[in-house]
Amino acid sequence: MRPFRTAEIIAVGSELLTPFRADTNSLVLTTRLNDLGIIVAGKAIVGDDVEMLAALVRLALARVDLVVTTGGLGPTEDDVTREAVARALTLAMHEDLALVRAIEARFARRGLAMPASNRRQAMVPEGASVLVNPAGTAPGLWIDAGEQAVILLPGPPREMRAILDGDLRPRLSARSEGHRVERRVISTTGRPESAVDEVVAPIYGPWRAGPMPIATTILAANGQIELHLSATSDGTGAARKRLDAAVGTLAGALGDIVFSVDGQPLEAVVGRGLRARGWRIAAAESCTGGGLLSRLTDIPGSSAYVIGGVVAYDNTVKVADLGVPASTLETHGAVSEPVALAMAEGVRVRLSADVGVAITGIAGPDGGSAEKPVGTVVIAIAVIGRAPAVRTYLFLGDRAMIRTQSVVAALDLVRRALSSANS
Amino acid sequence: MRPFRTAEIIAVGSELLTPFRADTNSLVLTTRLNDLGIIVAGKAIVGDDVEMLAALVRLALARVDLVVTTGGLGPTEDDVTREAVARALTLAMHEDLALVRAIEARFARRGLAMPASNRRQAMVPEGASVLVNPAGTAPGLWIDAGEQAVILLPGPPREMRAILDGDLRPRLSARSEGHRVERRVISTTGRPESAVDEVVAPIYGPWRAGPMPIATTILAANGQIELHLSATSDGTGAARKRLDAAVGTLAGALGDIVFSVDGQPLEAVVGRGLRARGWRIAAAESCTGGGLLSRLTDIPGSSAYVIGGVVAYDNTVKVADLGVPASTLETHGAVSEPVALAMAEGVRVRLSADVGVAITGIAGPDGGSAEKPVGTVVIAIAVIGRAPAVRTYLFLGDRAMIRTQSVVAALDLVRRALSSANS
Repeated sequence: MRPFRTAEIIAVGSELLTPFRADTNSLVLTTRLNDLGIIVAGKAIVGDDVEMLAALVRLALARVDLVVTTGGLGPTEDDVTREAVARALTLAMHEDLALVRAIEARFARRGLAMPASNRRQAMVPEGASVLVNPAGTAPGLWIDAGEQAVILLPGPPREMRAILDGDLRPRLSARSEGHRVERRVISTTGRPESAVDEVVAPIYGPWRAGPMPIATTILAANGQIELHLSATSDGTGAARKRLDAAVGTLAGALGDIVFSVDGQPLEAVVGRGLRARGWRIAAAESCTGGGLLSRLTDIPGSSAYVIGGVVAYDNTVKVADLGVPASTLETHGAVSEPVALAMAEGVRVRLSADVGVAITGIAGPDGGSAEKPVGTVVIAIAVIGRAPAVRTYLFLGDRAMIRTQSVVAALDLVRRALSSANS
Repeated sequence: MRPFRTAEIIAVGSELLTPFRADTNSLVLTTRLNDLGIIVAGKAIVGDDVEMLAALVRLALARVDLVVTTGGLGPTEDDVTREAVARALTLAMHEDLALVRAIEARFARRGLAMPASNRRQAMVPEGASVLVNPAGTAPGLWIDAGEQAVILLPGPPREMRAILDGDLRPRLSARSEGHRVERRVISTTGRPESAVDEVVAPIYGPWRAGPMPIATTILAANGQIELHLSATSDGTGAARKRLDAAVGTLAGALGDIVFSVDGQPLEAVVGRGLRARGWRIAAAESCTGGGLLSRLTDIPGSSAYVIGGVVAYDNTVKVADLGVPASTLETHGAVSEPVALAMAEGVRVRLSADVGVAITGIAGPDGGSAEKPVGTVVIAIAVIGRAPAVRTYLFLGDRAMIRTQSVVAALDLVRRALSSANS
């Protein structure tokens, strides 16, 4: 049989045509299909409309090897996917008795009788084979159409994933060319997307052609720039070697703005560094209001290196709980390098930490001035036995963006302190 | 001319067929179209493929009144939307000289000469009229096709929105039936989706039919349940009155789990309540690591009522900085009601606040026991002049879900304290 090379994904459900729900199943599906060397050529979203769905399935089969639908497999009248695919392929529907028994058994295990409506879920197009759903009552279906196929998956993400990573994986794998897509991510912070692109584009440009092309994507979000690389493996390990070399070249060219080449988030990299040094950290936050500590403690096991900190939103807290001299506050203002330094050293000493970090700034929308506009943020770091350091930033964007960039910049200061040879 | 009643949205761009980018433009577009009474009947995502895009536009025009595309209007060879729509409508392409001048002027304002490639952006299908893009070089286009129309918008969300809310709005409005969709949101917390649905479904069920139907959607996320109601206005104000009455009925039935009926997030409702009472708040956080304070200070102007707090991730901080007796910690453990109470009162007194809130719990994945499994979270509130209160929760889900639910539950305790007649 001809292997699958191209696919189209059709998400079914009227709720996906409202402003409230985005189709995210297709992103997971795309990852899995790409990993098998199957390219997604198009996606469609359609309401619970049997005619329109049947037309879309027919259209897709005119273009691609494989059609995957998600949603519309429930027990109600609104659930039209089985019927629509049968019409598209001109197949009759029949009741699959084994499926009736399986659904009954699922209810019985919970001490319930199967509602009559669930019997609908056992009405399947002729020739369909069942993909067992370990997470719900709606089974997936695989229907061959000559050398092509249509796969029907349920809409709830948990159920879709359970089938995708269960029954479906070996069947799809057997129909792919044994391709695997190898991926790498290079994560950076501290420079804008255009600056990163200027460095890397001339390098990876030529890699897009050639016998083993490397595909690249730059994604920018929340003060970080990610460079995604991928190559299709031929099973010899050549793609892995080629990507490792590519990551080495690009990371070398980008220098110390790279914080990870293994997909780890910045807070995990910082955590790993703190563990390795045996350092424990404390933070004093003003404009970020706890965002830095919250992000540090997103990581399981962070209690090994996070002591805690003080959210000094009000200036009285900066004085009473961090020991910032009232005179320093008065002379320089709360958003100033002397105050940030006093906060960092204050929290470090009071909480008996090895590293103290402090953030003070103007997140807006109010509180800016000509001298210190909204987005002015001062970040200081005090490491035991080293001279403290401080830097003033001017971040652009709204309140949330300024706060996020402040947290990322503070994490990056800690990362740089950890990798510095000093001490 | 026949008014537009149905639309299809086509997002163009090969990056939208990777695992990394979801189409979110269509959600914004759907809101605006729905607001004009135009229903979105389908969505499609297609790569930078002129033939496939042309086929999709033709197919959509066979079904709906209005086709809106996003993306593919840039200056490169990959940008095929103009060409594809011209093919779909069998229109010739011509260079719009006024557009060339406008793009040149945009570059000139930044002291730059227009790159030759940008001239492509002035090649438009015959009969197209320009929708000015105040945020970029790619103009939008409106192309009539008999009583139907195709609208081409750029892909960058900021540019798409700028055209949508600028040039496009009055033109679309003139072609809608003067319909406006009125919306209301009822936000609740503290009960699961099924419990909310059990209360409201029997009430709103009948509203879906009748001369002025109300559409309803329940959305559950992050410990909150939202009930969205909408009705199409006939311009007489009847829809507004009907929705106000509906909100009154449903909110009455749901009782005190409703925290807002105006779309305000919980932290804003709490902020408003604190301002109204003239109370200032401080928080002591363990397992949430600053997440509560971070959320409270998401709100602009929150410095008026947030003093700050202590992130006591390590037990030493609970003792030294919050005054929790070491003996209480030893006897009851860090995740216990006596410790939470001591943390809440400790932070209230130390930071001279009117309200102290404390969260201590086991967010996992490690640290659980048979007696106190992962998800056990204790939250206490101390209000000046009142008896303190404490409650133990058992939250389900992963580390992030447990932390989010803890923050929401703490905010809700404050909301309830604020609305209580006591004191």
